[in-house]
Amino acid sequence: MIAEEQLSEQQMLDYITDMFMNQMPFNELLGMKITDYTTSSIELKINMDDKLIGNPIRKILHGGVTASVLDVAGGMLVAAAAIPQMESCTRKDFEKNLKSLGTIDLRVDYLRPGWGDEFTATAQVIRSGNKVAVTRMELHNQEGIHIAFGTGTYLVG
Amino acid sequence: MIAEEQLSEQQMLDYITDMFMNQMPFNELLGMKITDYTTSSIELKINMDDKLIGNPIRKILHGGVTASVLDVAGGMLVAAAAIPQMESCTRKDFEKNLKSLGTIDLRVDYLRPGWGDEFTATAQVIRSGNKVAVTRMELHNQEGIHIAFGTGTYLVG
Amino acid sequence: MIAEEQLSEQQMLDYITDMFMNQMPFNELLGMKITDYTTSSIELKINMDDKLIGNPIRKILHGGVTASVLDVAGGMLVAAAAIPQMESCTRKDFEKNLKSLGTIDLRVDYLRPGWGDEFTATAQVIRSGNKVAVTRMELHNQEGIHIAFGTGTYLVG
Amino acid sequence: MIAEEQLSEQQMLDYITDMFMNQMPFNELLGMKITDYTTSSIELKINMDDKLIGNPIRKILHGGVTASVLDVAGGMLVAAAAIPQMESCTRKDFEKNLKSLGTIDLRVDYLRPGWGDEFTATAQVIRSGNKVAVTRMELHNQEGIHIAFGTGTYLVG
Repeated sequence: MIAEEQLSEQQMLDYITDMFMNQMPFNELLGMKITDYTTSSIELKINMDDKLIGNPIRKILHGGVTASVLDVAGGMLVAAAAIPQMESCTRKDFEKNLKSLGTIDLRVDYLRPGWGDEFTATAQVIRSGNKVAVTRMELHNQEGIHIAFGTGTYLVG
Repeated sequence: MIAEEQLSEQQMLDYITDMFMNQMPFNELLGMKITDYTTSSIELKINMDDKLIGNPIRKILHGGVTASVLDVAGGMLVAAAAIPQMESCTRKDFEKNLKSLGTIDLRVDYLRPGWGDEFTATAQVIRSGNKVAVTRMELHNQEGIHIAFGTGTYLVG
Repeated sequence: MIAEEQLSEQQMLDYITDMFMNQMPFNELLGMKITDYTTSSIELKINMDDKLIGNPIRKILHGGVTASVLDVAGGMLVAAAAIPQMESCTRKDFEKNLKSLGTIDLRVDYLRPGWGDEFTATAQVIRSGNKVAVTRMELHNQEGIHIAFGTGTYLVG
Repeated sequence: MIAEEQLSEQQMLDYITDMFMNQMPFNELLGMKITDYTTSSIELKINMDDKLIGNPIRKILHGGVTASVLDVAGGMLVAAAAIPQMESCTRKDFEKNLKSLGTIDLRVDYLRPGWGDEFTATAQVIRSGNKVAVTRMELHNQEGIHIAFGTGTYLVG
């Protein structure tokens, strides 16, 4: 039975990547691309695009785009960080785990105007648990300018 | 000189509405419409749309869309709430004020999955000042189900 | 066996009250008193006292006192709100539940200086669940002046 | 006139230290001591004490104490970080600046139970400005165990 199929760590990471990058229309709309993804790290990129502009005179990223990218970076990292702690690696249990993943709360600190051509989001887990995980995220532009910090609390397992 | 043109309260509200609804591409992309706007209240609506979906199986609004709409509701209300306190009503001073408006930090509490056909964001000012204003926001669906709370701190004037 | 003793709702509320008000030294130090407590409401009071002052010239409550009182109001309400959902009312299970209660994150919005003789904290549950609950809290002084808002995310059960 | 007395950077740091450590009764109650303080860094310590306990069985620091210490670390750093940007170094202007300092909002992420004998709070400025500054804070125990993160938004100048 396919539900009892065992998944490797990489298969699970690929599964999550596919889910977030190819099956979530809003992430595609923002043009998110994943450039690094392990059970302890993540790097997401988006390119500046006219439709992502919040302020036409200043040509800066909309704060909602920043929030979206940081939330996805935190959520994907939480999903990946849970993998080494999973007792079962069947596809069924893994999918069940993923279904319960959700953002409880998100804080974004906007440090500087979102100028740039390409933006990179990274995340780190600061609290992990079998019910709740907390991450901190950062958004930088292609020159390394730090644009925003995020803090996210996620429901897991 | 046009810069010294005096604006009425309604002209200023219309100006802000035009800026947020017609000149910010990302707000247009999300399909935001303003259905109430005074110096003490705001109501923004968006319709569910395939491109705004965060989870294709559950067909719910992406958390980043929620954050975006709440941030805009808070920011627009802060801009409107500053009008009665303005010493000068010239277009020049008003535009200068608007330029300095920015989100310092935003917290979103996701209460329930974002199911629905139409979503309504409202906001109230909980702290006003000549440097910083704080608002609380809410997102409900068309059945009155409460989907998210927001808290935003904004730089003003 | 005492561990299998059944507790009534009121006995559980009394148990939580005793734990927070009489067995937590820091709550006693702040002089917290509970003036209303049900499974859906809470009211905590503290009196202004020289030792709680944060600013000697302005004679206002220290922001840390505000955070403390709001956190306790939220945490106690979360503990009470879980009672009607408990499958078992044995003392043992109830105590086990209480032990896992903890604050995950807390946001305080300071609205006005903490002037006053007596301060009242109230709370409401905005998200309840079997793993995580979220509350919003308010602090007012004896004249009804609104001093602070809080938002707390708590681990439960 | 004393109000026009010029203060050196070190005199200003000493002035702020005296204000926070000796003139704020609640900080003294918590036993705060400052062990490092420059215009770009701060280290505050408190010792565990029975009266600071939040949970008598687990003997851990009350979450309100954590919030208090992090808020003070952030606020003091913001006050110090403003010094190099001050146009005037008269005592009068410096005192006026200090008076307008206040916490707008504070988020605390509680990562682990507050076990320990001695706790150290540190802070860094992540956004500085002439109206608002944002800091991130951390609390560790004497073994380097990371107990809490904080994020604070402060009104300045």
